[in-house]
Amino acid sequence: MSHSGKGWEKMLILTEGRTDRYDAKAAVGIIRYRGAEVVGLLDSENVGKDIEPLLGVGKGVPVVADVASALALGPRTFVIGIAPRGGAFPAEWRRHVLDALEAGLDVVSGLHDFLGDDAEFAEVAARTGSSIFDLRRPRDGIPVGANRAAELSTPRLLTVGSDCNIGKMHAALELQGELVRRGRDVDFVATGQIGIMISGRGVPIDHVLSDFVAGCVEQELLDRAGEGHELFIVEGQGAVTHPGFSAVTVGLIHGSAPDAMILCHNPLRTEQRGGGAIPPLSELVALHEALCRHVHGAKVIAVSLNCGEMDDAGARAAVELAQAETGLPATDPVRFGPAPLADAVEGIL
Amino acid sequence: MSHSGKGWEKMLILTEGRTDRYDAKAAVGIIRYRGAEVVGLLDSENVGKDIEPLLGVGKGVPVVADVASALALGPRTFVIGIAPRGGAFPAEWRRHVLDALEAGLDVVSGLHDFLGDDAEFAEVAARTGSSIFDLRRPRDGIPVGANRAAELSTPRLLTVGSDCNIGKMHAALELQGELVRRGRDVDFVATGQIGIMISGRGVPIDHVLSDFVAGCVEQELLDRAGEGHELFIVEGQGAVTHPGFSAVTVGLIHGSAPDAMILCHNPLRTEQRGGGAIPPLSELVALHEALCRHVHGAKVIAVSLNCGEMDDAGARAAVELAQAETGLPATDPVRFGPAPLADAVEGIL
Repeated sequence: MSHSGKGWEKMLILTEGRTDRYDAKAAVGIIRYRGAEVVGLLDSENVGKDIEPLLGVGKGVPVVADVASALALGPRTFVIGIAPRGGAFPAEWRRHVLDALEAGLDVVSGLHDFLGDDAEFAEVAARTGSSIFDLRRPRDGIPVGANRAAELSTPRLLTVGSDCNIGKMHAALELQGELVRRGRDVDFVATGQIGIMISGRGVPIDHVLSDFVAGCVEQELLDRAGEGHELFIVEGQGAVTHPGFSAVTVGLIHGSAPDAMILCHNPLRTEQRGGGAIPPLSELVALHEALCRHVHGAKVIAVSLNCGEMDDAGARAAVELAQAETGLPATDPVRFGPAPLADAVEGIL
Repeated sequence: MSHSGKGWEKMLILTEGRTDRYDAKAAVGIIRYRGAEVVGLLDSENVGKDIEPLLGVGKGVPVVADVASALALGPRTFVIGIAPRGGAFPAEWRRHVLDALEAGLDVVSGLHDFLGDDAEFAEVAARTGSSIFDLRRPRDGIPVGANRAAELSTPRLLTVGSDCNIGKMHAALELQGELVRRGRDVDFVATGQIGIMISGRGVPIDHVLSDFVAGCVEQELLDRAGEGHELFIVEGQGAVTHPGFSAVTVGLIHGSAPDAMILCHNPLRTEQRGGGAIPPLSELVALHEALCRHVHGAKVIAVSLNCGEMDDAGARAAVELAQAETGLPATDPVRFGPAPLADAVEGIL
């Protein structure tokens, strides 16, 4: 999935009936990292309410009941910000998508079911000139990975983690933001639907056949090689020790051929979600470096912690513990800022 | 893909114009491990010839020019034994498939294009009562892996390797054969199309979305749990250090939750096919065990060498070297027999 621009603009985000941190995590990510382009949320159950207590972000973002009420806010893009339970696309949502397309908005969806394949949606989009972006639709002609990213002159950094859903996208985006503030030209390479919604392009790595995971991210990096960036920050997925998602993780490691990795962890988590115990950080560092050694050597250069559920003192202690355990710089980039991560990265540029 | 029986019977194998070791490796595998069920090969360029010099196996297997000439041999199954260059299904092959279906034979195909989706093939099959088995068609409803195979009472052994295409299926089948000769009830779990053609069932792991690789083999093991086997031998794929295929490999490791692994290697190969240098065997042993440690602990218990291109003295020296390097029993199971592998496995039963 690739969107030509720098990301979608003037976004109206559908969070109908599910405006909470967990279900609406796409909305949370977009508001946090692309908040200036969010014109409103569509949730008939929370019209006119302040959503910050519900999402942790989004103070002042208007909530509307339907597309018609949102038009005064000037939306240009309608983003499906939640996934329906059970996978079926609810009839109530059809109306909102049709309203958006009739109003000439582009529609962005990360659902497994492709909205562009719906005959009625496609017909309306063709008539009004709207585009439908199905972010999980893989590109055609993906090659098998062949370690070609290792030959790029642009270095690559990959975020990896002790579990899925532990802050790999946030670490990547916070780091990118800090390096851009320092005047660096750093490109974020999204590998999941929320990252793609935020950055406007990327590869939906969980929707690729297993033989092509590495080749998919490799090709994306090669395609961007001519853009003149100083660094690619590749969004990691899963965990090398996760019993369900390790295939995706290792495919990303070998496909992106990183020069350096940042290890992400939540100090309160001792068990993987859907998996076994989380190994000591020092062992995770060694395992990641061993997986890279004979493909394209890479070091873990910093630790990024997600201390969102801890108090300040606990978070500071956790950062110090991670530093002591690994001998690497550590921070919670959201709470304490990403400077230690950026300092570590500047050392390899 | 699951076939109810113990494998297909009375097979006529299509190797048209490509009866050689490399292109016809499905035919080689089927002849070696299910030779009693092979009635002939269809290759109009080699009619009446001895194929052993071409394939290394198959002495006495008749070669015919078309399905009609094969009917006297009593075929019941028509197996597509080669993959067409470029992926398109040649017109010449259509005729053979139609002839086979018209004659009431079942058709078995490992092509990416599904023959069962071809309207003409489907119509003929429905009329004659033939079945079309597309081995790469994934099962429905594959779950995400959750380390559930680790809870099975039947132990699991996985073949892993220093590269793709290095003997993981052969090691698994030779080992199964030896253990069966010793009176053990050992089940072979195929994960590639040739293994499925040989054993009659299995999971086409390279045709599964990346998020579901581990879950796919896990579910297959759970489905077979009630069959009363003493051991599952899972056919490995790719290599943990292969830049293209490591995702599949690691997904299989975590999905099958092995109790033990056998490391496969070709002593003459120093570079991976499409990848970098092959690490020392001792390092590969350590890396595989590290990947298992926090999911379901497993040891590498033996080394299986593929010395097919070496002379006897060289092969013996290579076996001794592998033993010295790893401290593990080693053999070339095809040349010197699989007894050392079977002895190692009996130690964990």
